[in-house]
Amino acid sequence: MPAQRIIALDAMGGDHGPEVVIPGADIALVRHPQLEFRLFGDEAEIAPVLARHPRLLSRSRVIHTPVVVKSDDKPSQAMRRGRGSSMWLALEAVQKGEADVAVSAGNTGALMAMAKMVLRPVADIERPAIAALWPTVSGECIVLDVGANIGASARQLCDYALMGAAMSRALFHVEKPSVGLLNVGVEEIKGVDEVRQAHALLKDTRDLPIDYRGFIEGDQIGHGAVDVVVVEGFAGNIALKTAEGTARQIAQYLRAAMSRSLLSRLGAMLARGGFAVLKEKMDPRRANGGTFLGLNGIAIKSHGGTDAVGFASAIDLGYDMADSGLLARLTADLISFHGKLDAAVEK
Amino acid sequence: MPAQRIIALDAMGGDHGPEVVIPGADIALVRHPQLEFRLFGDEAEIAPVLARHPRLLSRSRVIHTPVVVKSDDKPSQAMRRGRGSSMWLALEAVQKGEADVAVSAGNTGALMAMAKMVLRPVADIERPAIAALWPTVSGECIVLDVGANIGASARQLCDYALMGAAMSRALFHVEKPSVGLLNVGVEEIKGVDEVRQAHALLKDTRDLPIDYRGFIEGDQIGHGAVDVVVVEGFAGNIALKTAEGTARQIAQYLRAAMSRSLLSRLGAMLARGGFAVLKEKMDPRRANGGTFLGLNGIAIKSHGGTDAVGFASAIDLGYDMADSGLLARLTADLISFHGKLDAAVEK
Repeated sequence: MPAQRIIALDAMGGDHGPEVVIPGADIALVRHPQLEFRLFGDEAEIAPVLARHPRLLSRSRVIHTPVVVKSDDKPSQAMRRGRGSSMWLALEAVQKGEADVAVSAGNTGALMAMAKMVLRPVADIERPAIAALWPTVSGECIVLDVGANIGASARQLCDYALMGAAMSRALFHVEKPSVGLLNVGVEEIKGVDEVRQAHALLKDTRDLPIDYRGFIEGDQIGHGAVDVVVVEGFAGNIALKTAEGTARQIAQYLRAAMSRSLLSRLGAMLARGGFAVLKEKMDPRRANGGTFLGLNGIAIKSHGGTDAVGFASAIDLGYDMADSGLLARLTADLISFHGKLDAAVEK
Repeated sequence: MPAQRIIALDAMGGDHGPEVVIPGADIALVRHPQLEFRLFGDEAEIAPVLARHPRLLSRSRVIHTPVVVKSDDKPSQAMRRGRGSSMWLALEAVQKGEADVAVSAGNTGALMAMAKMVLRPVADIERPAIAALWPTVSGECIVLDVGANIGASARQLCDYALMGAAMSRALFHVEKPSVGLLNVGVEEIKGVDEVRQAHALLKDTRDLPIDYRGFIEGDQIGHGAVDVVVVEGFAGNIALKTAEGTARQIAQYLRAAMSRSLLSRLGAMLARGGFAVLKEKMDPRRANGGTFLGLNGIAIKSHGGTDAVGFASAIDLGYDMADSGLLARLTADLISFHGKLDAAVEK
């Protein structure tokens, strides 16, 4: 029987608060009946929604707090005003060992700042990153950083490579995950200084627990060229959002193309089984949830505008992460390989 | 009758050289019979291919040179060894007024370095940019920079905004194009310093010939949120390539979905008119060609790996640009609005 896991939820986060968080948790509970939940937030708002989900009610405890981080709070404001907020308490539950994972659909900057403060970075990681699962033609890959930080030093990019590889091993059981550095060209001559320095470090450092494949370009991500794609957060976030937008755009083209004539409409009706498969494959809610990597605890950021199905995916991801023994492995890898990378830098 | 235009072609550029450039020019000639071509490159390689295209032969002149820029030459090597190359001579034909546009599928870095040297920047532009046409659900938008430079100052981002807007006016006849700055979040608190400074400049400078709409995120590009998307070249190139990769990935999903059952295959056959429209809409060759903006002359960079149909699109783009009176307008705009931006910076 799978281990029981406790998920701490920021019930107030995201555009819709408890109205999405609670039905989302209920969906996740059907898939993982051994889950338990801690719901942090305004009891007066949570209770009536929870009452409509008796199955979830029996597996949940509500911890009341009137403090909420707003979606437009700057990280500094959130840090001043947000102690004791639903977001803060969810993270603190993980820090205290009372929950295995925290999930929030709240403001990314605030969540990042609080997670660093409450959970603390592992090893000597300077900057935790947000990793996303990215659907590919051959399965899924991990892309990081998708927006925790703007810019990254060569050393930080190497940390991302190690952290992404640890996540790939934990989730997908790949012993030596392939890693690519996202760049503007496949030739070594191109690109940002930091990216070229990270390339040299990853290429020349021996015995790293990764199969480093060099530079890759944006069009190779979805092709599944590597298990882990490393990029600084500005370009990584833009890539992620651009891919989401392109998928929506093509779905719109497809609908228009299939309704342009009677014959097309008839054909689309006959092929509806195929379209259903495609629709599921392209559903952005399936890959909802970014994982904060590099902290002493697991925190998942759900998209703020998602619905219950999307929020349930973020919980699923948290469950998989908690179940994977990732943290121990990641910490061991970072400690072991930081030494090697540092030696390589000093050479 | 449309004006006669002379296109200078780097016949040796790209992965396939004359085997793609010459059939591509032939396709463009059918669409624009008033075109004339100057083909720069190795006559011994060009002549036999050209002999197979008598229509093009009658509208072309071959200018022999044995010097070729290789696809893996660094820009500095290309500058040392590349004077008198097919790429160089094509640009020089534009500079001398012997051609209206130069088109090359050669190495981007080399082409950029040579174009700056041969054509020279307009006004006091520090860095020319590469602008791409990006298909959207409502038509096309212009995205720049997609890879001419890594990083951009606030002032350079403002230049990109003005140059992109001039191109939008020239190609699409929008009087006051809408412009968005690509960023990681829609709130003003987020993002790179340079992007935030550019935002303040564009927002506060009066009488710019653009409708500045503030920050946009990656998913809004394909949605057609604005006419012009401004971004520094590293993230811009990654966004462009990621969108291309996502489109290919979805096409692959779609093929798999439509062949998974007899009923799906039958439906797909009936709907083949619709699929043909979709296929054309998603064909990456339709939007092949990046325009170098900010130079005293028009140079188009074709994708190095494209085929004749894709290369013909790059020529079409060059033709539209030559026909648009873009350069005069762009230069006037930059001179007029640099003064205002400078005044705003000094305030």
